[in-house]
Amino acid sequence: MAKKVGNFTVALERPVVFRGGGAIVGKMEKQGPLGDYFDHVVQDDLWGEKSWEKAESKMYYEAVRHAVKDAGLMAEEIDLLAGGDLLNQLISAGFAARETEFPFLGLYGACSTMAESLIIGSMAIEAGFAHHVACCVTSHFSTAERQFRTPLELGTQKTPTAQRTVTGAGASVLSVSGQGPRITGCTIGKVLDYGIKDAANMGAAMAPAAADTIYRHLSDTGRDPGYYDAIVTGDLGIFGQQLMLEQLREKGMDLRDVAWDCGIEIFSQDQDPHMGGSGCGCSATVLNAYLLRRLREGDLNRILFVATGALLSPLSTLQGESIPSIAHGVVIERGDG
Amino acid sequence: MAKKVGNFTVALERPVVFRGGGAIVGKMEKQGPLGDYFDHVVQDDLWGEKSWEKAESKMYYEAVRHAVKDAGLMAEEIDLLAGGDLLNQLISAGFAARETEFPFLGLYGACSTMAESLIIGSMAIEAGFAHHVACCVTSHFSTAERQFRTPLELGTQKTPTAQRTVTGAGASVLSVSGQGPRITGCTIGKVLDYGIKDAANMGAAMAPAAADTIYRHLSDTGRDPGYYDAIVTGDLGIFGQQLMLEQLREKGMDLRDVAWDCGIEIFSQDQDPHMGGSGCGCSATVLNAYLLRRLREGDLNRILFVATGALLSPLSTLQGESIPSIAHGVVIERGDG
Repeated sequence: MAKKVGNFTVALERPVVFRGGGAIVGKMEKQGPLGDYFDHVVQDDLWGEKSWEKAESKMYYEAVRHAVKDAGLMAEEIDLLAGGDLLNQLISAGFAARETEFPFLGLYGACSTMAESLIIGSMAIEAGFAHHVACCVTSHFSTAERQFRTPLELGTQKTPTAQRTVTGAGASVLSVSGQGPRITGCTIGKVLDYGIKDAANMGAAMAPAAADTIYRHLSDTGRDPGYYDAIVTGDLGIFGQQLMLEQLREKGMDLRDVAWDCGIEIFSQDQDPHMGGSGCGCSATVLNAYLLRRLREGDLNRILFVATGALLSPLSTLQGESIPSIAHGVVIERGDG
Repeated sequence: MAKKVGNFTVALERPVVFRGGGAIVGKMEKQGPLGDYFDHVVQDDLWGEKSWEKAESKMYYEAVRHAVKDAGLMAEEIDLLAGGDLLNQLISAGFAARETEFPFLGLYGACSTMAESLIIGSMAIEAGFAHHVACCVTSHFSTAERQFRTPLELGTQKTPTAQRTVTGAGASVLSVSGQGPRITGCTIGKVLDYGIKDAANMGAAMAPAAADTIYRHLSDTGRDPGYYDAIVTGDLGIFGQQLMLEQLREKGMDLRDVAWDCGIEIFSQDQDPHMGGSGCGCSATVLNAYLLRRLREGDLNRILFVATGALLSPLSTLQGESIPSIAHGVVIERGDG
């Protein structure tokens, strides 16, 4: 059972364990600073499929398969698959789930979905609904561009605050027991909207949600930012991270020494990703390949993983709406193995 | 804590209580056989907003507000809002959540989302993450037609197996204790696909998922269909229900005496809904307005609520894909109040 800590945070009295993981990425992600950490690289956007969407769904499936194998489990032992993607009606996740025998819960939190799936996976285990839960999300540069922005064939110039959607799928297998990094707390985010209307400036739209969730988490737990070796946001990018740091400074919290962002880590500026990586595959692959590895190796002891999502649609933008955002926080500790 | 029963079902040892509910529907739904049960009717598709999508989001918000009030709770007492809708990137739910202070988890299970939200709400309560959870989903005829089918202005003729998307939002407040109908078990569905490619025949696409979830539920629990006063599917419609009954008969289960379908109940054939109602608002409003009322009044003792979803997108159909489907089962018992 989890225990409420403050108004918005829960502490897991029996932590949930990361028993296995998998991360598949595209070529550009492989060439980035974290390239060596990923399990598999997809050399082209189609990966032998007839459409980018089918390739994205295949990445989802293969990431789950890798994570289950990595966990040393048989497919029959997985009680639940929870997750999603960015595509309309979650076709990547839904079609991948069809290829499995796992009970499935589809989730949508835009780029926050990895954290959402870890929270729901933790709930399922703590509630006794499941012993082993596979949590997986994916995104794909080419499917996201054509769905959310412009056809790639147009070669549209990006604006300076734009980010590049990560091609990648990250999966974790959470278990009721075992060795390894563990989830010891969660803070579920609220939807916030500071009125940003520029869909090419997602970092700015998401910064308030990240700042709010981090603020509420630290207030609820009475912890200083330095309690964590790193407070890792999902994909704020360079500009969004600056805004978040400023918003937290105004509330009296200085995160400069511990703020990391998966969107900043995954690409180098030489690769011209503008403000950095984005997409739910960004935080999912960086978590599963890099952060959990560093926790396993004892190089990091405790992190707060805060994936952030912008809850817009192309239609809401056309209808003049601003961009609501959300961020969920998950406390991950090194554990014993 | 929940206890595993068989491979796919859990029994809640401390049942989760339906403490309050709300159901808002459109004019045609109000004119149907269940019209008197709904809490509020929206007389036109825009409900004073500038777009159908904004009206749908308003229905979501108002259904949640009604349910929280009906539960006798203050907004501050709600620990979590879980749910979604059919629109790309869940803009109805996400934008409605922005107007609240509730931590939010966005879910997508097409028309199965009401059952998915009840399962996740139950998990959250059983796991100690929340005392009170608002679960809400919505759909809207006009937004669904233009997103999934053809612009309304074309006046396209429907095919005989088509269904009509319900304009409606249904919300439940689940609580850790209290009087009233209660959730005592859950069966999470798997994604199944029998190769149906006709997006105007969703009932046929969803029938195998419904049959599978019901079959696994009854096998896991060792119950006969007659254990339930009603086994209520979401929106199979007339043709889909027939297919489901046949599939179960082939497996040796006769559900004819207990099979209900929200899509069949919500409209009369005089209203020309073809095979019946559909959309996640269909099962959500029928559950919250009608089924829970009959459980409260002691007219029904036990039901198995099995919302069904078709996990296609317009793009997956254009790419030649068949239609994967899912169904989740929730056991609801009368309780003591």
